Amino acid sequence: MDLERSPLARAFPEIPAISGVELRVARARYKEWDRADLTFAKLAEGTSVAGVFTKSACASSEVELGREQVKLGSARALIVNAGNSNAFTGVRGREAVEQIMAQVADALGCKPSEVLVSSTGVIGVPLPKDKARAGIAAVLEADTCSWEEAASAIGTTDTFTKGSGASAMLDETRIELAGIIKGSGMIAPDMATMLGYIFTDAAVEPTFLQEMLSKANDATYSCITVDGDTSTSDTVLAFATGKAGNPPLASWDDPGADAFYAALLQVCRDLAQLVVRDGEGAQKFIEIAVSGADSDESARRVGLSIANSPLVKTAIAGGDANWGRVVMAVGKAGEPADRDKLSIGFGGTWAAKDGQPLADYDEAPVAKHLEGQDIRIDVDLGVGDGRATVWTCDLTHGYISINADYRS
Amino acid sequence: MDLERSPLARAFPEIPAISGVELRVARARYKEWDRADLTFAKLAEGTSVAGVFTKSACASSEVELGREQVKLGSARALIVNAGNSNAFTGVRGREAVEQIMAQVADALGCKPSEVLVSSTGVIGVPLPKDKARAGIAAVLEADTCSWEEAASAIGTTDTFTKGSGASAMLDETRIELAGIIKGSGMIAPDMATMLGYIFTDAAVEPTFLQEMLSKANDATYSCITVDGDTSTSDTVLAFATGKAGNPPLASWDDPGADAFYAALLQVCRDLAQLVVRDGEGAQKFIEIAVSGADSDESARRVGLSIANSPLVKTAIAGGDANWGRVVMAVGKAGEPADRDKLSIGFGGTWAAKDGQPLADYDEAPVAKHLEGQDIRIDVDLGVGDGRATVWTCDLTHGYISINADYRS
Repeated sequence: MDLERSPLARAFPEIPAISGVELRVARARYKEWDRADLTFAKLAEGTSVAGVFTKSACASSEVELGREQVKLGSARALIVNAGNSNAFTGVRGREAVEQIMAQVADALGCKPSEVLVSSTGVIGVPLPKDKARAGIAAVLEADTCSWEEAASAIGTTDTFTKGSGASAMLDETRIELAGIIKGSGMIAPDMATMLGYIFTDAAVEPTFLQEMLSKANDATYSCITVDGDTSTSDTVLAFATGKAGNPPLASWDDPGADAFYAALLQVCRDLAQLVVRDGEGAQKFIEIAVSGADSDESARRVGLSIANSPLVKTAIAGGDANWGRVVMAVGKAGEPADRDKLSIGFGGTWAAKDGQPLADYDEAPVAKHLEGQDIRIDVDLGVGDGRATVWTCDLTHGYISINADYRS
Repeated sequence: MDLERSPLARAFPEIPAISGVELRVARARYKEWDRADLTFAKLAEGTSVAGVFTKSACASSEVELGREQVKLGSARALIVNAGNSNAFTGVRGREAVEQIMAQVADALGCKPSEVLVSSTGVIGVPLPKDKARAGIAAVLEADTCSWEEAASAIGTTDTFTKGSGASAMLDETRIELAGIIKGSGMIAPDMATMLGYIFTDAAVEPTFLQEMLSKANDATYSCITVDGDTSTSDTVLAFATGKAGNPPLASWDDPGADAFYAALLQVCRDLAQLVVRDGEGAQKFIEIAVSGADSDESARRVGLSIANSPLVKTAIAGGDANWGRVVMAVGKAGEPADRDKLSIGFGGTWAAKDGQPLADYDEAPVAKHLEGQDIRIDVDLGVGDGRATVWTCDLTHGYISINADYRS
């Protein structure tokens, strides 16, 4: 099926080249399609790597291996296969990944453990080794390409290419960050992420890069949901080539660490929100801000309970200011809440305060807000100081059409 | 909107009268509709009561009061209001419930605490006291009615009336059970239930009735889901009038206790499955049997993770034997599982065993099975002896239409 471009799409931004990163794509033809589906990022010697992965108990071999590889802290290459997730394929799937790692390591003169591999697509079909071998041979010889071409090659059911860039001054040194991501369905929070890759020319020690990526993940990828379904392959990797020449960042006390983290957080938030903007069938982008919770984590859980509620998501799709469904979703979250302290608003207008509908509630501005594409829901639990913001999209006929009307 | 009768509907069964129970309905006109929406069950003196309620942190006043009332163990009346849930209405909502309790208690010469009240419908609008007062006056004088008329009067968006009956021999005494239930959307498991009422002429001590109802709840109402959204008003009550004349059941050791529990469990399972059969937009009834789990509770959680997955539910709607989505839902459940021991089947045919697709997997019988209305998914986790069966329905355009295309 041909998917229409999401009405919430954003144009691909200008992203600078990252010193120490070369991008290439090729056609491995993992599916019957005529498009690049194999992506290769060649990384300079000395590149640090960090990663966050799905917490699925049925994770793919790529994820299992990746978890071990990022602990070693150095990377020379990233390979992304699109069209086949290679998940739930047993030993045959693992052999295919190890073949790719060995082939690339051989060409670059690095260790296989320095070759990170991701795959995305159908579950349960082993990645064909012959196609992978020919594809890798081709991509090693290919011309370098742009961020947008790489962002396109890692996509599957995505309807637009997604990227983000940022820069920061680390003391005297200007550093750049670039990120690309794919994801549209089987997107859920709480566990982890989707396929995202962030590159920087900054020098950052691997353990500190991991600490910052995990922290940014908690506030971005872990705060989005399209359908509450968590993939077996979710992965976000960050690579720091060190080519900017700054003294390597190793702790929050180093000059520029806060500036670097702010830029990293911005790129992660941009990428996470772009995935929601390409949510399957999405017509509206929904921001849910929860305050007054028992803790930040409790606020996040309440936010996700609202964001994953089919009744809330269909109400927004229908432009219905049905705050009773928000009450329901708060109530079922299993988090500390007090019905008689709960307040709910849409687009800056409170509909209910302290457990009761407002006597002078004016639905007109709320109805107008809900006609727009960017929806804001405010929830104040009134029991503490915890707060979190989560992002999701509405649930529409488009989601059903994409997932039920066509055989996958 | 007019809802079409569910294609999964069942005819209302023959249910015998229960000695000690009189049913009446009236028109309180809680909404602009011309139908009975107030139900009254008059219960004989000495009737025992037990109940299970939503665990929502935003439960209605009816639920709050009901939790206290069932602890007292005796009931003389049940009142059910349809069209307005009276949830999230603060002190005004609570006053309306207390007015009903007082009015009925006055008429029957019993304590207000012996009058159980439930309400179902829109959230956030206080139950109008004047309509309630007039409705109660009318229903107290109404002619008695049938189980089916009462089942119809408690319904809201239900597309068919739902009831079940059973009988059992307690030593020398034949006893009867009758149950009615309503529910179609905002149906979720794990927390509790919907509005269901079970009546029996057996004599059962309240604490033992509660123990049996809670046990039956764990295997029935807590094992169904339509949309994963838990109502603020879910309630199941069981009333035992004692008119059958058996020696009161007080423990599992009493003659007939097992027979009574088997009949109670049957009625609860029938009623729970009928709610799924009326799931909003449902075209297929799905039974998910999980075995080999770490515990029965773990099996139930894995089953519900599958049953609540929009990607699994849309795949079934599309007749797609997409077992990769079942793998995903097992993986995200957060329960003990081992990818390489996991097996998945549809309609009695295994598609994957021990973490890999079966080499000789024949999709033809599975595709045929998925064309039917009653779908069976088998999942063996291979890590223990825990097992559970859960029930749900598919996710279709009908669900979106009911919840997004029309203002509520």
